Amino acid sequence: MRIALDAMGGDHAPDSTVAGALAAADADFEIILVGDEGIISEQIADAKVGGLPPNCTIRHATEVVEMEDSPAAALRRKRDSSLRVAFELVAGGQADAVVTMGNSGAALAAGMFVVGRLPSVIRPAITALVPSRNAPVVVLDVGANVDCRPEHLHQFALMGRAFAEVGLRRESPRVAVLANGTEDEKGTDLTRAASQLIDADPALNYVGLAEPGDVFTGAADVVVTDGFTGNVFLKTAEATSTQMVELVREAAASGVVPKLGGLLLRPALRSTLARLDAAEVGGALLLGIDAITVIGHGSADSRSVANALRTAARLHTDGLLDRVGEALRVADAPAGAPAVRPS
Amino acid sequence: MRIALDAMGGDHAPDSTVAGALAAADADFEIILVGDEGIISEQIADAKVGGLPPNCTIRHATEVVEMEDSPAAALRRKRDSSLRVAFELVAGGQADAVVTMGNSGAALAAGMFVVGRLPSVIRPAITALVPSRNAPVVVLDVGANVDCRPEHLHQFALMGRAFAEVGLRRESPRVAVLANGTEDEKGTDLTRAASQLIDADPALNYVGLAEPGDVFTGAADVVVTDGFTGNVFLKTAEATSTQMVELVREAAASGVVPKLGGLLLRPALRSTLARLDAAEVGGALLLGIDAITVIGHGSADSRSVANALRTAARLHTDGLLDRVGEALRVADAPAGAPAVRPS
Repeated sequence: MRIALDAMGGDHAPDSTVAGALAAADADFEIILVGDEGIISEQIADAKVGGLPPNCTIRHATEVVEMEDSPAAALRRKRDSSLRVAFELVAGGQADAVVTMGNSGAALAAGMFVVGRLPSVIRPAITALVPSRNAPVVVLDVGANVDCRPEHLHQFALMGRAFAEVGLRRESPRVAVLANGTEDEKGTDLTRAASQLIDADPALNYVGLAEPGDVFTGAADVVVTDGFTGNVFLKTAEATSTQMVELVREAAASGVVPKLGGLLLRPALRSTLARLDAAEVGGALLLGIDAITVIGHGSADSRSVANALRTAARLHTDGLLDRVGEALRVADAPAGAPAVRPS
Repeated sequence: MRIALDAMGGDHAPDSTVAGALAAADADFEIILVGDEGIISEQIADAKVGGLPPNCTIRHATEVVEMEDSPAAALRRKRDSSLRVAFELVAGGQADAVVTMGNSGAALAAGMFVVGRLPSVIRPAITALVPSRNAPVVVLDVGANVDCRPEHLHQFALMGRAFAEVGLRRESPRVAVLANGTEDEKGTDLTRAASQLIDADPALNYVGLAEPGDVFTGAADVVVTDGFTGNVFLKTAEATSTQMVELVREAAASGVVPKLGGLLLRPALRSTLARLDAAEVGGALLLGIDAITVIGHGSADSRSVANALRTAARLHTDGLLDRVGEALRVADAPAGAPAVRPS
């Protein structure tokens, strides 16, 4: 089990990525740090851990995809970028999974064109785990495909189900379609057509439309949506959380009494807020690509990077790719399409 | 100046609506309480304020539109509903504006078919004021039109500009289109085409695409989007806020020390959170209808109802309808369309 880590991707890379790899030095998988060998070696020397851990190697790559690079251009022009090389290691059989905290659009493009889609997959999807009252909810697509057709959302439901089963050990996961209300007449032309497709699929436990609030209360295990709406949903939730945390901080800074209150409340608040912390999983999944791919937040710290590495390893070991491939192959079969991959 | 208040609409009606009207008893406008006369009179007697205030009258209506009623059916079958009658008072010249905390879909339908659109308006839009770091941001459409065309978003921009100028006294309001990122290649076919239309309109101060986080930081004064995305945006922000407030409460209830902390922090927290309180304005605006219409939250309390009444009165006095009509007429003119309304 070898994971290619894009050591140069992310706002705090390579500090955060190298520290994350070091934090996973006790893991039972190998980590290939992809990026500028000189810079990475320097980071490791600075960490004073007695050199590269036994489960780590470095694969030199000269270029870096920046957050503001256009995905297509990054893929074409920066052929020796750490991000692209990470996917090439998987394509060449030298790695089993990719972890990046870098440009998610470029990761999608590299996944599509360097590694390729799983058989039957029309569109890969970026898949987030959103914290709910009890357990995380699988939401996809949160950004890969802005303009979607109903059959894309149907495939997202199948891939999301496979991920909920393998990654979260849910049995017969409840699937919903994100909408502006739960009544039958709600939704767009897209959500209505997707609802019908998903409801008609006996492989899926469809529970209907879900409003944003239903995601947070855990009314479904898998919530599917187009990548535009999903991205707006995710970014709105993040921005609102950030704003609320700032308001609590401001309140606590507004005088001596509230300041004392804030100090007394802080430890308990930290532990309840930790439930919302995406760092536990380390990032979003790129589902539909023929490689386990974890895309972390650009702002990821070393703990997030270590978690992303462990998540990638576990999903690979638990056979996520086979399950996603199987879910789509079975869905294809009744329509008369040949199974693309021999089972 | 007479405002028709749907006294039976909302989760806490008629308690909240009657109390809201009583709280506005000192206002310099008339309030027509529309709904079951017996129930409303009883509420007023219970309030022990010495009977109906001089600026209030009751208009009897026998039926009530429920939150779960389908808008079309509610309009057709409940012809004597408090909601429909409120709009009929405006259509008949007996009232100048409508305030309801009831079913927003039914309010839209009643506005469209009983009062009618302003000249040139293709689609009315539900318009929210979203709290940002400094001042509220106008966001539309947040629910009236789930499937939109680019020209609808262009009209939303024009109506939103008029509202920002009249209602919020902004000069040359900055207009943005809600999207999944601010780079040129972001967005959907719809947002790209709408961007071009809005950018090409010299009457609008277009500042480009806005991410959800940009709304909360106030990077624009007016943010336009289709009613599906806008509704998901608004409901996600509301659900996230609710979840965060619950987490703070849970933290404060988790032990003696955090409880003390919570007590000391609470007054300051209340005052910072008040900034997010939609009750200040009392609701969303239904723009594009030939009547000032404020649609409050179903859960509105008496303070929200009173604020909604004051907002409606102020917008009517300040000539919002004329400004919205003018904005669209001017936009129509270059295309050769005749001005529908003599100026």
